[in-house]
Amino acid sequence: MKVSTQEQKKIVCIGGGTGTFVVLKGLKKSGHNISAIVSMSDSGGSNKRIRDEFGMLPTSDIRQCLVALSNENGGVGLLRKLFMYRFEKGEGISGMTFGNLFMAALTDILGSQKEAIRQTGQVLRIHGSVFPVSFTDTNLVATYENGSTLYEEHDIDMPPHDGSLKITNLALNPPAQANDDALTVIKEADMIVLGPGDLYTSIIPNLLVNGISEAIKESNAKIVYIVNLMTKYGQTYKFSARDHIQAFTPYIQEKITHVILNNAPIPPDAITIYAKSNEEPVIDDISNEAYTVIRTDVMSRYLIEKNKSDSLVRSLIRHDSKKLADVLLSIL
Amino acid sequence: MKVSTQEQKKIVCIGGGTGTFVVLKGLKKSGHNISAIVSMSDSGGSNKRIRDEFGMLPTSDIRQCLVALSNENGGVGLLRKLFMYRFEKGEGISGMTFGNLFMAALTDILGSQKEAIRQTGQVLRIHGSVFPVSFTDTNLVATYENGSTLYEEHDIDMPPHDGSLKITNLALNPPAQANDDALTVIKEADMIVLGPGDLYTSIIPNLLVNGISEAIKESNAKIVYIVNLMTKYGQTYKFSARDHIQAFTPYIQEKITHVILNNAPIPPDAITIYAKSNEEPVIDDISNEAYTVIRTDVMSRYLIEKNKSDSLVRSLIRHDSKKLADVLLSIL
Repeated sequence: MKVSTQEQKKIVCIGGGTGTFVVLKGLKKSGHNISAIVSMSDSGGSNKRIRDEFGMLPTSDIRQCLVALSNENGGVGLLRKLFMYRFEKGEGISGMTFGNLFMAALTDILGSQKEAIRQTGQVLRIHGSVFPVSFTDTNLVATYENGSTLYEEHDIDMPPHDGSLKITNLALNPPAQANDDALTVIKEADMIVLGPGDLYTSIIPNLLVNGISEAIKESNAKIVYIVNLMTKYGQTYKFSARDHIQAFTPYIQEKITHVILNNAPIPPDAITIYAKSNEEPVIDDISNEAYTVIRTDVMSRYLIEKNKSDSLVRSLIRHDSKKLADVLLSIL
Repeated sequence: MKVSTQEQKKIVCIGGGTGTFVVLKGLKKSGHNISAIVSMSDSGGSNKRIRDEFGMLPTSDIRQCLVALSNENGGVGLLRKLFMYRFEKGEGISGMTFGNLFMAALTDILGSQKEAIRQTGQVLRIHGSVFPVSFTDTNLVATYENGSTLYEEHDIDMPPHDGSLKITNLALNPPAQANDDALTVIKEADMIVLGPGDLYTSIIPNLLVNGISEAIKESNAKIVYIVNLMTKYGQTYKFSARDHIQAFTPYIQEKITHVILNNAPIPPDAITIYAKSNEEPVIDDISNEAYTVIRTDVMSRYLIEKNKSDSLVRSLIRHDSKKLADVLLSIL
């Protein structure tokens, strides 16, 4: 998939979580110019300590994107493994990821988190660039249909209330200013990819940062939204494909030019497991829309098990890096 | 100082602390085959936590030697800085060195501390090899002239009693078995360098490991001892050069072929500072001995200040890497 410099296009992936990891991993060898823009309102686990004790912005999503873009053939396999490693021993250290501690140390040495991210990218020999959407220290605030409010991403991700409640408003507190680098790559992009990923905690938080939605609106890029495979209890309970896209209405919904929908059947055993958490495959209810809909098999056949370096089971099925990349490049 | 493969000699440096760091740093560009053998009974600070909480052998001295041999021109300057970095923030993390956490994570990933040390050496692109003297989990035990005993390296380093008391016996508990790799490089060595460094906590502990003294006795290598610049209260109070060498008597004293003694004057301001800790320049009282004595200027003119990455002032004057290397290579 090598492209000449003339053919090289600019692709910007907006998100932050596991879904963005999968997209970046697939695109990194495309030869195109890849940038990741990462939400910075995460407040859980290792990130909470990075914020509270180190006075830094959260780094877990940044770290994942750096690893996704890391050059697999450059002899940095060991460093990549280390970056995903989570300590299981050591009082006060257990639960921290090595990559977050790496970036905390580097930020202190260099006196700049921005520069630490850039130099970590060099150490991991990444193909592309990773930009925090903002350097404002901010938190996500969600208001629900019953009038209740949650004030941190970590709580919104695992709400204490009935997970079928819909989010009616999402905001950042305090308001966040966009990272200039993020605005620049958005404005110059040939294609902007949103998702897959947690709609209200990974994708939309980027659009809440002052300047980001405006930059997307001004851009001439193709805007591609990759719909999630499964609903998420607490965020997108019983959301259809259309409901997912409707969630972008206050922001950039009208700019979406392409929607990618998986049409491969979800394995019955995965459906059973997800059903226990009130989660189910996203129903395709899209017809006659302003955007192009691409229905194809973009699912990974492999079940993602809980692994040692990660205390959470992120998901049991995922999008497939290679299949997604092929579809995205066909749109480009 | 490039040497051809035919001229390449095998140099083994035995020690572990800052003195060994200085020797290795000087020798790494010599083109000769450099090995470091490092004492493993350290029990202070970061090492204590590595031992108690991670169930690993101490890594601080290993880390220092790896950094000393790291290739300065290989673009790993940032990693080297990180390796010496000590966290100052983070509950349970403050006080830990990044390098120790790096090796703890890698040991867990690889399932072997030996392999973790080897691969860390690759990441840091070291010129040479670093070998723990032993993989036995052991502690240093010192008995003093008043009959009292201390059971850990950390306590011996900073004894609670009058620091003028002489150590009358030193042992490892439990007895430690030599690392086979250490025995091999000693047997094949053309030159073995002991010191400089803390006599009873960095240098001699290596000779207490079963097999090490025997291997040195069997070797045909030149055995060089680099005498410390200053005495150390609590260990070598008022020790002359001859007293230092006498301390090797139960082990390999008769095998010493060369002794390097600094003859440059110690700056008066340094003497004043050391005097406050009951420490003073080592007096040269050697005459007509079985070994060759080389008296020359091997002192660094720079004062080593307390730095951010290290919570201790290791010393105010040091041996000079380049000057020591020149003398050692002239003996070789």
